[in-house]
Amino acid sequence: MKVSELGEFGLIELLADIVNKSKNPQDASWRQLLIGIGDDAAAWRGDSSTQLATTDSLVQDTHFNLNIIGWEDLGYKALAVNLSDIAAMGGIPKYALASLSLPGETEAECVSSLYQGMIQLAQEFGIAIIGGNIASGPNVVITITVLGSLKGDSILSRSAAIAGEQIAVTGYLGMSAAGLEMLKQQLKLDDRISPLLRQAHLHPIPKVKEGQTLLHLGVRAAIDISDGLIADLSKICQMSKVSANINLDYLPIHPMVKASFKTEYLEMALSGGEDYELLFTASSQVMERVKRALSCRVTVIGEVTEQKAQHIILTDATGSVVTPGKKGWEHFKSRD
Amino acid sequence: MKVSELGEFGLIELLADIVNKSKNPQDASWRQLLIGIGDDAAAWRGDSSTQLATTDSLVQDTHFNLNIIGWEDLGYKALAVNLSDIAAMGGIPKYALASLSLPGETEAECVSSLYQGMIQLAQEFGIAIIGGNIASGPNVVITITVLGSLKGDSILSRSAAIAGEQIAVTGYLGMSAAGLEMLKQQLKLDDRISPLLRQAHLHPIPKVKEGQTLLHLGVRAAIDISDGLIADLSKICQMSKVSANINLDYLPIHPMVKASFKTEYLEMALSGGEDYELLFTASSQVMERVKRALSCRVTVIGEVTEQKAQHIILTDATGSVVTPGKKGWEHFKSRD
Repeated sequence: MKVSELGEFGLIELLADIVNKSKNPQDASWRQLLIGIGDDAAAWRGDSSTQLATTDSLVQDTHFNLNIIGWEDLGYKALAVNLSDIAAMGGIPKYALASLSLPGETEAECVSSLYQGMIQLAQEFGIAIIGGNIASGPNVVITITVLGSLKGDSILSRSAAIAGEQIAVTGYLGMSAAGLEMLKQQLKLDDRISPLLRQAHLHPIPKVKEGQTLLHLGVRAAIDISDGLIADLSKICQMSKVSANINLDYLPIHPMVKASFKTEYLEMALSGGEDYELLFTASSQVMERVKRALSCRVTVIGEVTEQKAQHIILTDATGSVVTPGKKGWEHFKSRD
Repeated sequence: MKVSELGEFGLIELLADIVNKSKNPQDASWRQLLIGIGDDAAAWRGDSSTQLATTDSLVQDTHFNLNIIGWEDLGYKALAVNLSDIAAMGGIPKYALASLSLPGETEAECVSSLYQGMIQLAQEFGIAIIGGNIASGPNVVITITVLGSLKGDSILSRSAAIAGEQIAVTGYLGMSAAGLEMLKQQLKLDDRISPLLRQAHLHPIPKVKEGQTLLHLGVRAAIDISDGLIADLSKICQMSKVSANINLDYLPIHPMVKASFKTEYLEMALSGGEDYELLFTASSQVMERVKRALSCRVTVIGEVTEQKAQHIILTDATGSVVTPGKKGWEHFKSRD
């Protein structure tokens, strides 16, 4: 079977299975491992604190188009998507390694700009860029690995959602997808929304501090929204062996996105992906504390249910069940 | 300037410079950093031991050709080149993350084989594969990050070579380049050398235990030979601010490589690259201990000299100075 037929998530499951079967519990590395393949980041017991590692790539013409994103934003975003994974574990990012594949005709100045973008974000979070690799290749591929740690023993994971908990997201949904559409179609939108959409797509702010606050306040289940609300919530349901009810009317969608993308806004919010907001579950008491503590928007959009079917049920204000068009953006499967 | 004109090493210097200027000594990450960009791996003070991280990519048609290497060997080699970097620091590899860019038409079975090859080597060294990333792209790119640690406070680095020390290498030089030529040209070589060359190119054994032994015995300067003897020794000279004299007649070149590649063997040994042997410097006393301790071949090939010009002088048996044709394999510059 071709990987395009199996899909990204199917392939990850296959490989995780191969790796898990190879585990040798005699090895110290495996014994100290807390979370391996399948969460936002891996976690293991270090000498005196829990350590985290995550890696993510941006591939030219799969994740970005150099006609739409500049080199500085690209460097920033390549690091941001990794920080977002550390945020989704409640971690503190510390070190980054960057591996580049570049066509020989790339201008060195462009690579400098890429690094400047990366450095801007690294400085903001006190991260040291400590290594990397450069190779010649036909297209631009940026792979960044971020290492981090956790304060204390608890962690945000995809497998800790409990039936009865509320489901919430930070920020707005669909902003990045709307931003991409605006840039691709060169739409002239209102000045009040245009810079927000541009930033959401080109310069997303990873919710690192927010992730740490969630963990501190008692949240245990979280994921960052990279593939889209439906796809990422599905991963929580699958890993936690629960189902979810989502009320579409509660989704935080910016009113000007609704106005500018009248037929697409719901699809953008459900499956647009790349929002890099945090999706998490918590009891209503914890949720109240979270809302008071975070300065960003926090919206309860549904609840975790007991059904083991790992289904997501979408309802509207009338209580009618709505069937979504697709299940979020998956690599190898066309983004229809 | 295009990166093909600047070259891989020029580009790395440029980027290291940008990163170093961005350092904020207030940040704990920077304060704890021992070795950043420019060595085989980065090193920093962890909670109770020194931590290591390295990343390396194999890019299709730059580093490998799928007509020459199978998927299982490719997975093995992608991890091996990273372990070789940990070996060159004297470290213990512990965790690995693998990031793949793959065309959609790749067979899932090929990706499974890639992982099987990686797992084979991981199991040998007790390494846990803890995460990664999969993305669609026009060509195969495998980026692996390996995390490790050190026993004790000392480390093998590129910057510790001292004038008067002997220069030595483990194993044979030029085996991988000879293996590549054999496979590319489908040469039918003697059965006593053919499997060795095949293994040297497709299935190199990273000198992890040997690196740890070097460190334990008092060696302080080392690098792994990935770009070729001249290129990698140049890096030691540059980082240690010394020069080197190499006697060509001492180079460990397999007699059957000399016989099979009469006009190319010296070039292969000096600049072939991908041998993944360790190149190191040590006092004659330490060198004697190393020779007794290691079961692999250890050959003294020259000595470190005081000149600050960071030159490598090659001499033959008569003492005549020999000028090499090129300075090792550099990405973006054609491998002539």
